[in-house]
Amino acid sequence: MKFSKMFIPTTKETPNDATLPSHQFLLRAGFISQTGAGIYDYMPLGKIVLDKIRAVVKEEMDNSGANEVQFGFVTPLSLWEESGRATTMGNELLRFKDRKNSDYVLSPTNEEAVVNMVKNRITSYKDLPINLYQIYTKFRDEARPRFGLMRGREFLMKDAYSFHSSTEDLVREFNLMEETYKKVYTRLGLEFRVVEADSGAIGGSGSKEFHVLASSGEDTIVVCDSCDYGANIEAATRKPNAKDKLETIAIEKIETPNCKTIEEVSSFLNADAYYSMKAVIKNAIYENGSKIAVFFVRGIDELEETKACNSIGALELEDANEDDIIKAGLHAGYCGIVDLPKDVLVVVDSELKNDNNLVCGANEENYHLKCVDLTSIEGLKFADLISVKEGDTCACCGGKLSYTKGIEAGHIFQLGTKYSSAMNANFLDSNGKAQAFVMGCYGIGVSRLVAAVIEQNHDEKGCIWTKETAPFTVDIIVSNSKKEEEAQAGENIYNELKQAGVEVILDDRINARFGFKMGDFELIGFPYAVVIGKKLADGFVELVDRKTLEKTDIKIEDITAKILELIK
Amino acid sequence: MKFSKMFIPTTKETPNDATLPSHQFLLRAGFISQTGAGIYDYMPLGKIVLDKIRAVVKEEMDNSGANEVQFGFVTPLSLWEESGRATTMGNELLRFKDRKNSDYVLSPTNEEAVVNMVKNRITSYKDLPINLYQIYTKFRDEARPRFGLMRGREFLMKDAYSFHSSTEDLVREFNLMEETYKKVYTRLGLEFRVVEADSGAIGGSGSKEFHVLASSGEDTIVVCDSCDYGANIEAATRKPNAKDKLETIAIEKIETPNCKTIEEVSSFLNADAYYSMKAVIKNAIYENGSKIAVFFVRGIDELEETKACNSIGALELEDANEDDIIKAGLHAGYCGIVDLPKDVLVVVDSELKNDNNLVCGANEENYHLKCVDLTSIEGLKFADLISVKEGDTCACCGGKLSYTKGIEAGHIFQLGTKYSSAMNANFLDSNGKAQAFVMGCYGIGVSRLVAAVIEQNHDEKGCIWTKETAPFTVDIIVSNSKKEEEAQAGENIYNELKQAGVEVILDDRINARFGFKMGDFELIGFPYAVVIGKKLADGFVELVDRKTLEKTDIKIEDITAKILELIK
Repeated sequence: MKFSKMFIPTTKETPNDATLPSHQFLLRAGFISQTGAGIYDYMPLGKIVLDKIRAVVKEEMDNSGANEVQFGFVTPLSLWEESGRATTMGNELLRFKDRKNSDYVLSPTNEEAVVNMVKNRITSYKDLPINLYQIYTKFRDEARPRFGLMRGREFLMKDAYSFHSSTEDLVREFNLMEETYKKVYTRLGLEFRVVEADSGAIGGSGSKEFHVLASSGEDTIVVCDSCDYGANIEAATRKPNAKDKLETIAIEKIETPNCKTIEEVSSFLNADAYYSMKAVIKNAIYENGSKIAVFFVRGIDELEETKACNSIGALELEDANEDDIIKAGLHAGYCGIVDLPKDVLVVVDSELKNDNNLVCGANEENYHLKCVDLTSIEGLKFADLISVKEGDTCACCGGKLSYTKGIEAGHIFQLGTKYSSAMNANFLDSNGKAQAFVMGCYGIGVSRLVAAVIEQNHDEKGCIWTKETAPFTVDIIVSNSKKEEEAQAGENIYNELKQAGVEVILDDRINARFGFKMGDFELIGFPYAVVIGKKLADGFVELVDRKTLEKTDIKIEDITAKILELIK
Repeated sequence: MKFSKMFIPTTKETPNDATLPSHQFLLRAGFISQTGAGIYDYMPLGKIVLDKIRAVVKEEMDNSGANEVQFGFVTPLSLWEESGRATTMGNELLRFKDRKNSDYVLSPTNEEAVVNMVKNRITSYKDLPINLYQIYTKFRDEARPRFGLMRGREFLMKDAYSFHSSTEDLVREFNLMEETYKKVYTRLGLEFRVVEADSGAIGGSGSKEFHVLASSGEDTIVVCDSCDYGANIEAATRKPNAKDKLETIAIEKIETPNCKTIEEVSSFLNADAYYSMKAVIKNAIYENGSKIAVFFVRGIDELEETKACNSIGALELEDANEDDIIKAGLHAGYCGIVDLPKDVLVVVDSELKNDNNLVCGANEENYHLKCVDLTSIEGLKFADLISVKEGDTCACCGGKLSYTKGIEAGHIFQLGTKYSSAMNANFLDSNGKAQAFVMGCYGIGVSRLVAAVIEQNHDEKGCIWTKETAPFTVDIIVSNSKKEEEAQAGENIYNELKQAGVEVILDDRINARFGFKMGDFELIGFPYAVVIGKKLADGFVELVDRKTLEKTDIKIEDITAKILELIK
């Protein structure tokens, strides 16, 4: 391809709302163009990159034995009513009416569509397993679309759905998908981490996320410094923080005037915050209303909201306001585990189980309790609620845990029978008995990966594409295209590289100066440039490595061999 | 690929609403599945065919030098307001609001989006021409979605848009696109015809359609039996039907009681219908209301409504009802060209120009005029209004014209500056003067082609895919997969063909009988089957040609060579 024949509108202007490097550089280098909130056009270079990533995903999915399909992007709302998600998906599910006043949605995901496709078409365990995938447009009406391709509303995703006659077979496919995903990210040249994850709104029993490591990542992931353990902070666990158990003493109520925080109480009582209970009061939102919930963790721990939300099966948690708290009969700062109002939901962190001699609020203004023994309280619900901290101990190996930032670029789920049961999709097992399909689902954010590659690979001048994602591998820069001999040398090397199977673009623009062409090379981020300039008279061209910006003089007759060696 | 690993749910049931062979067979053979009115899922075989057609289109577009892009499928309504089409597109343009109450549409075509992409990014004639295309989802909220993939609401289209600094350069690209399209349809193995066309709602100065010939086609196309001329009936022209001019005599009003039709009047007056004027009264719909229009053609001709509509620049024509006619001061059956009410639109067919001695209504109940001389009436508007009939004479060569049926699978337009002017999209010409881009646009119905291939290539048993569109070229049918030696022979031939680069599928289903496998082969329509059955003991397999259903015994060691020879 030649620059003169391609639409590559680079610009020096950075839109105000573009804060992430990928957002800025993809816009400036002419890869994408915004048309609406969270909606982007792909210009020619952007389309090539998108298709390269799509092709790698397709190839590895096909290698895994999955079958490619394509669901309608516009889906009847009735399918979502069947599964129950018409009510639980909220505003992210964009709904509309057609000219006949029928209800439709723009698909954000396709569990319903795939169950509808397979239902009554696969009827026997003999036709299982099957894994159906598509790489197609999705729409999620995000409240705050931002960061360019990172969190768009219209986006390209690979979504796969597998059907099994047993959980064992689902686990086999789940592991195969994990391996398949690893191959995808490795081929794309990305540094990534597979971590344990929360299953969120999709549901199911187990899930893993694939994070592209980048300092701008929206997700905090917890990793171990000495083993392979990794988890999204929402799902991370640690070795319990165990101190000596104290003696059981009789419970005691004491006045703690104006001591509302753990620090104030601990200091006032001259006690170790480890032996205290921190109460976090939340408003839990359900489909049909809300409820006040109190979560207890150790004084030295923090609540992980996603875990808390999952522990009571709520749609989401909101901060409870003063009115809610008072109405529920609670006292902010003095909330404790003993004698809580009956209609308040209560969950205690598992690490507190069996603890005695604890300090907590007395459910009365200016009073706390000492020596509370949890084993003496009946009917308590325990769950993992804490947020793992840097420096905590790995539960797998005893190593130290630390934080890193990641971009979620893939997520795989063991769904089980959640959707097949809801939609009454069954097969006959080997005994002729009807069973709901056991399902898995597996997503890769294809358009998000375009941005993720750049978040991980850029410098202050622009993009640095990896070899497998670059729109072209080599940019031949003719310093002055008006000089016949430079232009001719450019054409010759261009043809030679093309012949050798190298993806190459020739910057043959007559009216562009060398500095402009070099600036475009750095901004667009092709892996290599071959500069044809003054040294041509001596038989040399300059090879530039985009990553290091190192320049090397190469004899013109050696350039093709050199490049072939570099890209192997 | 193996049948046992692929989701190919064939069925014997034909849905009631499926009347076209392609609709029936694509559903029955497990290519597609309907999810809503005019919305289809592609199952694995359907997805392969769709991608094969897409790949041919992409390759030929790339060869032509066009750049692939991708526009957002969801587009802000504001872009459509800029071009003016928000009001003219009617209900086919599906509109909706997002969670923030902003207006969007599902793109049915992308003239606005491409002008928006290029505007302010291409600023000089030096950067022209450029041709940008995409192969992406469209949505048209058809009043009557029908015929499966033929007239769906969500569909896949290749749409291209070119930008030029002159009309001459547009014509060059238009011709290049015509050649490119011919290559596409030829490679797909289709019988097709390029015809002159009406530009319809897209607008512009010239357009051609590409029709896949099939008896089920919705379009009537006029073709010449001795030259290359072809045109959609909506745009077809002929050599004027010329009879001797009569003597000019004084106009005369005569009573013609109860003679409302041309036949009645001609018979009553014992006159040649050729020398009479037929009036067709229509209600012409415009953006801001409607008007009564009267179109005059010869008594022996019929009005072509599309031509009539274009001649007065209306959005559409409706039949005028009795009330409308009376209100306009007209008399049905007695409407004539002399002294028509002033606020009625009038157009006369060009073939009547300069005619004299004509019969027409007297605009009075039960009266006609004789010897009307059109040259004596001032201010008449003439336009081509007639519908070409079979047997008419070709204007190009004098040959005979006849009708054939076609499926519109492509349409190319010389748009001119319609959209660039409306959206204020300019470039600087060589004199530094701002000019609106001269544009062309070029569409291919990719998903419609999936159906068109089958409309042209099927028999009563099922689909017959062409070589370039078949999901697999060869189906190896193991008669009885429980027989070890047959299964093994199947695997061997499968591996050998795969090695040789043949796209092959192995019907290895253990529980399916031979008749069922053969039925699936015929219904799905792979070009060839290799049957491994009883003759295996003698070293033979059977080669079946799907088109002819001819069977030939081939020595097992020759089968790969034989197939390679067939598909060359």
